[in-house]
Amino acid sequence: MTSLIHDASAALTERPSGHTSQLSEQGKAVRMRALTLLGLGTLFLTTSCKDSHIDNLEERSRLSDEVSLWPLPQQFQTSPVAFKLSASRFKIVHAPGSTAGPSCSLLQNAFRRYFKYIFGYVNEQGQPRSRVFDSELRELQVLITSTDPECDAYPSLKTDESCKFAVVFLTAFVVVFVVLGLETFSQLVYEDDYGVNNINKTSILDYPRFSHRGILLDTSRHYLPLKVILANLEVMAMNKFNVFHWHIVDDSSFPFLSRTFPNLSQQGAYHPYTHVYTPVDVKSVIEFARMRGIRVIAEFDTPGHTQSWGKGQTDLLTPCYSGSSPSGTFGPVNPILNSTYDFMTSFFKEISSVFADAYIHLGGDEVDFSCWKSNPDIQKFMEQQGFGQDYSKLESYYIQRLLDIVSSTKKGYMVWQEVFDNEVKLKGDTQIHVWKMNPQYQDEMARVTAAGFHTLLSSPWYLNRISYGQDWQDIYRVDPQSFNGTPEQKKLVIGGEACLWGEYVDATNLTPRLWPRASAVAERLWSDENVKDIGSAYSRLEKHRCHMVRRGIPAEPLFVGHCGHEYSGL
Amino acid sequence: MTSLIHDASAALTERPSGHTSQLSEQGKAVRMRALTLLGLGTLFLTTSCKDSHIDNLEERSRLSDEVSLWPLPQQFQTSPVAFKLSASRFKIVHAPGSTAGPSCSLLQNAFRRYFKYIFGYVNEQGQPRSRVFDSELRELQVLITSTDPECDAYPSLKTDESCKFAVVFLTAFVVVFVVLGLETFSQLVYEDDYGVNNINKTSILDYPRFSHRGILLDTSRHYLPLKVILANLEVMAMNKFNVFHWHIVDDSSFPFLSRTFPNLSQQGAYHPYTHVYTPVDVKSVIEFARMRGIRVIAEFDTPGHTQSWGKGQTDLLTPCYSGSSPSGTFGPVNPILNSTYDFMTSFFKEISSVFADAYIHLGGDEVDFSCWKSNPDIQKFMEQQGFGQDYSKLESYYIQRLLDIVSSTKKGYMVWQEVFDNEVKLKGDTQIHVWKMNPQYQDEMARVTAAGFHTLLSSPWYLNRISYGQDWQDIYRVDPQSFNGTPEQKKLVIGGEACLWGEYVDATNLTPRLWPRASAVAERLWSDENVKDIGSAYSRLEKHRCHMVRRGIPAEPLFVGHCGHEYSGL
Repeated sequence: MTSLIHDASAALTERPSGHTSQLSEQGKAVRMRALTLLGLGTLFLTTSCKDSHIDNLEERSRLSDEVSLWPLPQQFQTSPVAFKLSASRFKIVHAPGSTAGPSCSLLQNAFRRYFKYIFGYVNEQGQPRSRVFDSELRELQVLITSTDPECDAYPSLKTDESCKFAVVFLTAFVVVFVVLGLETFSQLVYEDDYGVNNINKTSILDYPRFSHRGILLDTSRHYLPLKVILANLEVMAMNKFNVFHWHIVDDSSFPFLSRTFPNLSQQGAYHPYTHVYTPVDVKSVIEFARMRGIRVIAEFDTPGHTQSWGKGQTDLLTPCYSGSSPSGTFGPVNPILNSTYDFMTSFFKEISSVFADAYIHLGGDEVDFSCWKSNPDIQKFMEQQGFGQDYSKLESYYIQRLLDIVSSTKKGYMVWQEVFDNEVKLKGDTQIHVWKMNPQYQDEMARVTAAGFHTLLSSPWYLNRISYGQDWQDIYRVDPQSFNGTPEQKKLVIGGEACLWGEYVDATNLTPRLWPRASAVAERLWSDENVKDIGSAYSRLEKHRCHMVRRGIPAEPLFVGHCGHEYSGL
Repeated sequence: MTSLIHDASAALTERPSGHTSQLSEQGKAVRMRALTLLGLGTLFLTTSCKDSHIDNLEERSRLSDEVSLWPLPQQFQTSPVAFKLSASRFKIVHAPGSTAGPSCSLLQNAFRRYFKYIFGYVNEQGQPRSRVFDSELRELQVLITSTDPECDAYPSLKTDESCKFAVVFLTAFVVVFVVLGLETFSQLVYEDDYGVNNINKTSILDYPRFSHRGILLDTSRHYLPLKVILANLEVMAMNKFNVFHWHIVDDSSFPFLSRTFPNLSQQGAYHPYTHVYTPVDVKSVIEFARMRGIRVIAEFDTPGHTQSWGKGQTDLLTPCYSGSSPSGTFGPVNPILNSTYDFMTSFFKEISSVFADAYIHLGGDEVDFSCWKSNPDIQKFMEQQGFGQDYSKLESYYIQRLLDIVSSTKKGYMVWQEVFDNEVKLKGDTQIHVWKMNPQYQDEMARVTAAGFHTLLSSPWYLNRISYGQDWQDIYRVDPQSFNGTPEQKKLVIGGEACLWGEYVDATNLTPRLWPRASAVAERLWSDENVKDIGSAYSRLEKHRCHMVRRGIPAEPLFVGHCGHEYSGL
C-alpha cells in the first residue's frame, strides 16, 4: 500500500481538477479512494485497507503536533499550503458518479452537522463581504463507490471499515465512512489570526485498528434523560467511537418500557412516566446513533442484577429463605421454573426486534448464590440435576437455556467474562467481554482467545472510577493486545469499551466525567499501536478537548490552561 | 433562651393574627424575633442568640428526616399541621414597623428570587383556578428591627449573625439575615401528592456556629466565566456560605484588570479581552454576592505564585541565575528593591478600594527559595541584613513590609499558615489560614490559637482532590475545633473554607465537582457541633441536592437514586 501514498502525494503536486475519475478508478482497483477538489486547491483524504503498511511514522509524529487530529489517522501527509474556506461559498456536494445522492438523509444530516461545526460558531453575525482569495476551498465532493451505499442500513460489526474516506474529495465505500471522514475534515479546519477558516493541503489514509470501539452508559442506577444520551452519541462521533453499549436496566431501576411486559417499567422504573424510555425514545436513540455510524447494543443482564425486574413480573426472581420460610426478599432470576423461560422467550423476541443491531449483550456477571442456596426448591432441583453444591453449574444451566432462546432470534450475543469462566457452551461468534481487574485481565484475554473466542476489553477502562490528576495517561497506556498469545489470538481482540457505571453519575456530571478521558480510549482503539507517545498525545488531546468545548460539550480540562472559546454553559 | 422556644411554641397554638407587636416587643427585649402570619396559619421562624442552649436534640434528629433542611437549624419545632401556598395569592411583604421597606433592593431582590424558587418551576403554565383552602398561607411578613437595617451595607465578619430570622413572620435584625431566613423558608415548602405547595407549622431559631463559612475558587489556573462565578454564589447562598474567597491571580494567569497597572492583565492574562475580569465584572460579582449576604475576599498571593505578574511588570520578580549569569527565568517577587514596595503600595491602594470587604487575603504560601539563592544581589542583601543562609528570614522581611503597606489601607489581612510559621510579626486581628495536611493540621490549629490568633481551616477541605465514592462523609466528619486546646483557643476558630483549586477545574466541571460536596462543609460550619450523624445527613443531603438540581444547579448525586425533577441541562 505504500505506493498508493506516493501516488496520492504525486497527485498533490498536480493541478487539482480532472483527476476524479482517474483516482477513483485506481481506488476501485485497490479499494483505496483518493479525492480531488474541483476548485483551486487539491486536498486528499484517501482511504486505505486495514492490512496496509504504516508509512513515515516519525514524520507523522512531528506533524501531529501541528495538525490537531484525534484520534490520529493511520497515515497522513500535510503541507504548509493553505486554502481558505468561506461560509458563504463553501459547499459539501455529491460527486458525479456517487452512488448516494441528496435523497440519502444520513449524508444530508452529516453535511449540515459538520457545516455548522466548521462555520457555525465563527460566522454568527451574517455573511462577511470580503474579497475572494485565490486559494479558496469551495467544495468538498463526497463520492460513495459501493453499489449499495447503505444509506438506510444500520452500522454493523461486519461493515468493512478498512476502506474509508478521502478529502477533498471525500471518497468512501459506504455512507457511514463519510461521517467519519467529515469529522476528520472538520478537525483539519483551523482559524488563522484573522478569524478566517483555513485548511492545509493534506492527504490522509485512515482506518481503525479495532472494529469495536464502545462506550457503556448505565441508565439504571441513575436515569439519564434522552438529551444526555444523544449528546453523548454526538461526542462519541467526534471521537470515532462506533458502539453505544446501553446498560439499560439493572437492580436499581427498569426504565425500558416493554410493549410485551409494560409492568416491568410501570413497577420497576424510578417513575413510570418521567423516568422511562418509551419505544419512541429508544427508536430515536437508535436513529440518532445510526446517523453517526454508531451501533446501539442493548444489555439485558440476567440472571443477577435483576432486582428491578421482580417488581413488575411475579415469580421471575428466586424467593430467598430465612430458615424454612421465605424471607420476603428475592435473589437472581429463578432458573428452575418453566415460566421463567417462557417469559425470556417473549421478552427477548421483543428486544430482538426493537434493537436492530445483530448483537445483544446478555450480561451474566456477578451472580450471588446465597439466595439460591437458601431456597429448598432450588436445593431439590440441584440434587435432581446432579449439580451437587456447585451453583455455578446452575448458573450455567440458566445461561445455556437463555442462549438457546436468544439464538433462535438470530441475534449474536455478547456476555461478561463469567459466562466463559463458568464454561458455558457458547456459539462460536460469541463475544466475551472482559471486565475484571483480578485475576489479571491480560491472563483472561489470553485464555478467552486461546479458546478461540472473540473478545473485547473494559477492565482498565472503568471511567466511573476517578482519581486526582491526569488519569487519562493510564487509560491511554493500556493496549488490548498486550497479553501472551499468538498472532491468531491477538486477531480475536475486536476492541474495547470505556464504561461509565452509574453509581455516582447522572445528567449533572456525566459529560465532563466521561470526556475527554474516554477520548484516550478512542485513540487507543482507532490509531496504530505505535501511537503511544504521551507528550504528543497531551498536546493533541488538549486541542481536541478545546474542539469539543467549542462545540458546546463540557469536556473537562486535562490540566492548567485555557481554550480560545471557553465553555459558556453552567 | 430555652424559655423563648417555649414562648414561641405556645404562640403556635394561638390564633395567628395580632401577635406581631407583642412578639416583636419581646424580641427586641432579648434580641429574639418571633413572627406571625397575618392569615389563617401561624408559623414561626424565630431567631436566637449564639450563646443560647440547644434544645431537644433527639427530637430534632427525628424530625430532620422529615423536613429536609440543610444545613440543619440550631433549634426547630414542626408539626403535622400544614398550610397550602398559592402562587397567585402568596405574598412576601414588609411587616408594619419594619425598618426596611420596598426601597431596599437587597430585600426585593431576595423576595423575587425565593418566590421563583418556591413557585417558579411548579406553576409554569399559568395560574390555576382552584378553590381556596381554609388552611392557606397567604403572607410571609418580613420585619427588620435594627434602626440601621444595613440595606446598602456590605456583609462583614462583625455582622452579628447570632440574631436572625423568623417566619411567618420572618424577623431579623438586619436585612442579610432575611436572605438566610428566606432560604430556610423555601426549604420548608414541599409539594404534596397533588403538586400543591405546602408548609408545615414550624418554629425555628437559628444562627451559625462559625462566622466565616467560605468557598475558595481559583480563577488563575483556569479562567472562570462570570456566569460560573455568579452561579456559584447563588449555590453558596442556598448552603448559607457567607465568604467567597476569590483566589483571583496566580502563576498561571493574571485575569484581574487593574486600572493602575493594566499591563498586568494585558500581558499576564490568558487573553487580554476574553479572559479578564474588568472593573465592572468585579463590581457585579461583589454586588451579586452582597445581595446574598456573601463577603468577597480577594487574594493577591505574594511573594510566590506570581509568575504571571512578571509578564506585565518589569523588575517585579527576582531574576534567577545559572552560575554567574541570569538564566532568563524568574522567581518570587524581588524583595530587595524599593521599586517592589512602591509597586505594592500603589497596587494594594487600588485593591483596597475595589474590594469593599474589611479583609484582604495576602497569601504568603509556598515560597521557593532556589531562585533567591541563585541571585548574587539577593545573596549580598542577605549578608547585609545578617540573615545568614536563612531565606525564610528574607521572606519574613518582605511580608513584614507588605503587611505595613496593607495596614496603611486600613484593611485587615488573612494569610496562609507559612506566614505564621515563619514568625512574621502580625497584627492582632490577623487571620491565619491553615491549609497543610502535614504536619497535622490539628497541631497547627493548636499552635496558632495558642499564640492568640484567629484561625480558619481548609486542610481537609481541598475539594479539588477527588476520589471514587462518597467522599463527602470524610469532609463532613471534620471538626475545626477538634484539637488540643483551651476553650479560649477554640473560640479563636472563626470557621473554614472549602477550596476548589483550579488545576483540573474550569467551567465544564466546576459545579458538579463542588456541589453537594461543599454542602457537607456548609453544615459543619453552620450547625451545632453535635449534628454529625452520617445517616441523617445522607437523607437530608440527598434531598438538598435534589432541591439544588430542581433550581437548575448540576449538583452531582451522592449515590444510586433519582430526583423527582432531574437536571435538564447537558
